Amino acid sequence: MAQQHLDPTESTAGVVTGDALAVYLRTQATEFLRALRMHRETGTSGGGAEESVDAARALRRSARRISGSLHTFRPLLDADWSEEMRPELAWLSGTLGLEHAYEARLERLLLALHRLSGSSPFPAQQVSAGASAPGPGPSAQERGNLTVGAAKAGALLDRQLTLARTRAHSTALQALGSSRFHAVADKVAVLASEVPLTTAGVSTDLRPAAGAAEERLLDAIAALPLITAGHPYNAEALVHGLSPDPAPHPQDGPWHQVRLLLRLHRYAREALSGGGLGVPSADPRMLAAGRALDRHRDAAEAAGAAAQAARTPRIAPATAYALGVLHADQRHEVEAARFEFQQSWQKQTVSAP
Amino acid sequence: MAQQHLDPTESTAGVVTGDALAVYLRTQATEFLRALRMHRETGTSGGGAEESVDAARALRRSARRISGSLHTFRPLLDADWSEEMRPELAWLSGTLGLEHAYEARLERLLLALHRLSGSSPFPAQQVSAGASAPGPGPSAQERGNLTVGAAKAGALLDRQLTLARTRAHSTALQALGSSRFHAVADKVAVLASEVPLTTAGVSTDLRPAAGAAEERLLDAIAALPLITAGHPYNAEALVHGLSPDPAPHPQDGPWHQVRLLLRLHRYAREALSGGGLGVPSADPRMLAAGRALDRHRDAAEAAGAAAQAARTPRIAPATAYALGVLHADQRHEVEAARFEFQQSWQKQTVSAP
Repeated sequence: MAQQHLDPTESTAGVVTGDALAVYLRTQATEFLRALRMHRETGTSGGGAEESVDAARALRRSARRISGSLHTFRPLLDADWSEEMRPELAWLSGTLGLEHAYEARLERLLLALHRLSGSSPFPAQQVSAGASAPGPGPSAQERGNLTVGAAKAGALLDRQLTLARTRAHSTALQALGSSRFHAVADKVAVLASEVPLTTAGVSTDLRPAAGAAEERLLDAIAALPLITAGHPYNAEALVHGLSPDPAPHPQDGPWHQVRLLLRLHRYAREALSGGGLGVPSADPRMLAAGRALDRHRDAAEAAGAAAQAARTPRIAPATAYALGVLHADQRHEVEAARFEFQQSWQKQTVSAP
Repeated sequence: MAQQHLDPTESTAGVVTGDALAVYLRTQATEFLRALRMHRETGTSGGGAEESVDAARALRRSARRISGSLHTFRPLLDADWSEEMRPELAWLSGTLGLEHAYEARLERLLLALHRLSGSSPFPAQQVSAGASAPGPGPSAQERGNLTVGAAKAGALLDRQLTLARTRAHSTALQALGSSRFHAVADKVAVLASEVPLTTAGVSTDLRPAAGAAEERLLDAIAALPLITAGHPYNAEALVHGLSPDPAPHPQDGPWHQVRLLLRLHRYAREALSGGGLGVPSADPRMLAAGRALDRHRDAAEAAGAAAQAARTPRIAPATAYALGVLHADQRHEVEAARFEFQQSWQKQTVSAP
């Protein structure tokens, strides 16, 4: 209400300058500090694992926005400060994001195993049956809905990804207590009150830099195999499903890159539209495209985890078979996500004014 | 040119009676005898495996058409004769079809393994490399393009399906030499000159019976989950991919049924349009729908063969993993075929006059 919505695509809109960028960066820095305080409180009080997760997510959210803005609006900001700040923010959000990523990956894979077994992960009769049967309880009953292979594959993935998650948790805790982190936090605290714009930066129009970010996004999208992706069941995503190359699918790279560029474009729009809080910064179709690319990334990493679990020595053939089915299933999710992106992007291009 | 095309959907078209059915059945019986003669000649001369395959295919083709017509136009034909004839024709085309089915299934699975390994099944450098390398030769080199798991899975499938095919070949040879077969062949020889129409059958309009066959097809299609099938990547076909139920996917049944009904409908149209030779009896869209259902059946059976191979005792985990990927890949082919059918059928319904 109080803030005017500035549409960067309208030539009649007022020029948005470095001032608006400063507002945006201060807002994000304040968010960062608030999330950090919340994280410390939930961490020391011992309770509220959910709040702790929310706080970590908010920390990452603002770290990504600050880092992205430093990249997009580089010429407007003090170069030394920017170059020092960006890798530290990337390290921080990467380190803080791992624990949640492993948790989400395990959940995705277990849900898929249950779907592939034609069973629900939470059987309705679990409670009542547990009361009457003195046996090994709901866990065994739940496993009864799976084949031996699917159950063993689930147990193996559970073990491996829970271990990875526990390690990521420790690493994140260590990071938050490190002097490296305190140095970043101090810098963000300064940023919350004082944004190091260059002398010219204050009055520089933000739109050329934001436009360049959009240009990079559009170029990267134009290089994607969208015609193939738009043909359902093109069977492209699984082409290297049994390739001897142990590296992640190289065909995924350009899609992951577009995901990052779409994010930078979104943050640039937020900066232009005045602070990024309470202002509709991205249209729903752009958000849909972003969600498709998130799904693409999640499915690709889940497929990789299934393939990696299958390389565990001395597993049973039934376990390996279930992991093979699971891997292929997630690679088809990858293909489905590309189709979804293509559809949302095409809609966007066709219906744009 | 000489034969007039009778469109059964046009009310102004002349009535097509049992006479036309007699022409159709005589034509198919003659085709059957011609194919049988060709099969015997290629079989005894020892050469021409391809001609032998062609002859067997032609035998099956006419057997299916005779059998289908006996079913669709039952009331026009001598009941006892029809009831005796149909199961014998079904036995014959089933027995003769198995060898080719196993061969095609193996080819489909090996092609899929190569696609999944990102390699060509016929490497271009095979010949020149074979000349310079004194090693184990092209076969090992070709295998080098696959992972150990994919190569072992391919070898296992090759062994199992080649064995099944060899057995089917023996069974077919035995069948062709059996008194049971000679009894069928004798009956078909009689049919080539004398069709046992009932007294009323000669002048009975074929269209009600043909219409009933179409009605059965349309009812069966209406019961298919076409809305789901029309949403790409609905992940339905793999839902029971890891189900503890060892039976073939029950969800495939209605689709297989529609495939058979579509065939009966096609043969009924052939009978109505005058003999079925040289007359365009089915529109291209109907053929496209039929091809999609053939693909559905082939992929479903290939997926089943991969799953069955994975139950071989003492296979390596890498082999089982490759078979799991292959199974899922073929189940996605099943899903793709359903989508293809839905698309071709929808097009048909929308653009029909």
